[in-house]
Amino acid sequence: MNFMEKEKPVGVFDSGIGGLTVVKRIASVLPNESIVYFGDTARVPYGSKSNETVIEYAIQNAKLLMQKGVKAIVVACNTASSVALPELRKRFPVPIIEMIAPGAGLAIKLTKNKRVGVIGTRATINNKAYSQKLHTLLHDVTVIEKACPLFVPLVEEGWHDHPATEVIAHEYLDELLATDIDTLILGCTHYPVLQKVISKVLGDHIQLIDSGVAAAEVVREELLRYNLTTNSSAMGRMDFFVSDIPSTFKQIAELFLGQEIKEVRKIEPEYLAGLTSTKE
Amino acid sequence: MNFMEKEKPVGVFDSGIGGLTVVKRIASVLPNESIVYFGDTARVPYGSKSNETVIEYAIQNAKLLMQKGVKAIVVACNTASSVALPELRKRFPVPIIEMIAPGAGLAIKLTKNKRVGVIGTRATINNKAYSQKLHTLLHDVTVIEKACPLFVPLVEEGWHDHPATEVIAHEYLDELLATDIDTLILGCTHYPVLQKVISKVLGDHIQLIDSGVAAAEVVREELLRYNLTTNSSAMGRMDFFVSDIPSTFKQIAELFLGQEIKEVRKIEPEYLAGLTSTKE
Repeated sequence: MNFMEKEKPVGVFDSGIGGLTVVKRIASVLPNESIVYFGDTARVPYGSKSNETVIEYAIQNAKLLMQKGVKAIVVACNTASSVALPELRKRFPVPIIEMIAPGAGLAIKLTKNKRVGVIGTRATINNKAYSQKLHTLLHDVTVIEKACPLFVPLVEEGWHDHPATEVIAHEYLDELLATDIDTLILGCTHYPVLQKVISKVLGDHIQLIDSGVAAAEVVREELLRYNLTTNSSAMGRMDFFVSDIPSTFKQIAELFLGQEIKEVRKIEPEYLAGLTSTKE
Repeated sequence: MNFMEKEKPVGVFDSGIGGLTVVKRIASVLPNESIVYFGDTARVPYGSKSNETVIEYAIQNAKLLMQKGVKAIVVACNTASSVALPELRKRFPVPIIEMIAPGAGLAIKLTKNKRVGVIGTRATINNKAYSQKLHTLLHDVTVIEKACPLFVPLVEEGWHDHPATEVIAHEYLDELLATDIDTLILGCTHYPVLQKVISKVLGDHIQLIDSGVAAAEVVREELLRYNLTTNSSAMGRMDFFVSDIPSTFKQIAELFLGQEIKEVRKIEPEYLAGLTSTKE
């Protein structure tokens, strides 16, 4: 392994800003690694789009990160993780870390009664990505899944502690209370922002799994395994790219990341769309 | 005017499916006109994106409709109407009908106390498109504007009569009650689907303006003015194109249109993105 390889940044992409909750976790586990983040804010959200379209967008995003010289790619988007992973692993010669397997693995480790809930966007839930992975890891696990499509717009509206969010959380989650789950996977990178209201509705006896926490640990392991961990002892730098900068971007992004963002650069959407196609 | 010109279809585009409420109004006023609809579902929503990005997308959508041989273009999206109109009128040699002026015109005609409210996406409200147009039409009008970003996802979730929608409608609209408006413009093509809950929150003394109704009337006038009205006495045909077909598309689209949709064809997003750029 070339010495220079180890000093390359880790690439992270998401459909928008939700992946910043994952960046926060990676930076906490691996403070010396540099990170290049790309949020596809011109085409957000992915959760309501078809698998074919999400795969196309994911390939373009990964290609962009490769152009930025990354040594690994983190798919910090559950929807893209649940549909695009085989295509990404086939095309890109770097470790690719996604959200589903780490989140499912942590849930299996923590559940005592083998009853696990999963919440996510409609695409993630319809694809049964978590359900399949959980059953692979523990054949007699019971999985209860529920799509919560309004959680993402509520978070992006900044209503993480608004009374309306609690009403909607009850609407989505009350049926989970009757299922006797002891563990719930937050299967969307936006959802950790709603952790407080979700806990309030479900009570303390259900453990919430932040897939970003689990994925950050897998990033650490993969870098070690491929001898790609940086030798630097300085704080890593963070570079942020998005395909669109709406007016509320900075405010919401800082809520997600939990720290100030200095500069965000724009990638033109038509440049991105020209990067590749699933038909190539 | 070439005879063939009159028998061309009317083109309608929107960021997604909201524009179908406008198609419904046009078909009701002009039942013999054929309509080609394009919904940019791969890049929906526009309301949270930057002006620059929305202009880019609007030009591509209009170019696509021109390729389909339309005789007029209806921008059935308030966000695109509010930012992209000058660019569209500069580039395309057909009548272009948008949502803002017709909706504002109808509100001025109907208000008695000269106090008009406007609700819409964050982009439409931030651009003050309705406010400026209303003041042009009636200099001493008082305009009260309010962005309601969650209304679109609520409609797309199919929650047009859900209790949570009423809670959120109160949150957004209660402050309008104190302003003594007698007329409210539904400044987003999704909002007519929420007419019932909005009326319930605001009461019967505030008239709701569906911009689609006003725009359909302007389409009729413009076709007459340019001698483009069809000679056909048969029912016009409707062709639907979208840039993505998510799983819930048909169900929600039929809720908007109020009738069954037989076939929807897909335009590849990368084809669309390649159509043009604001930098050309």
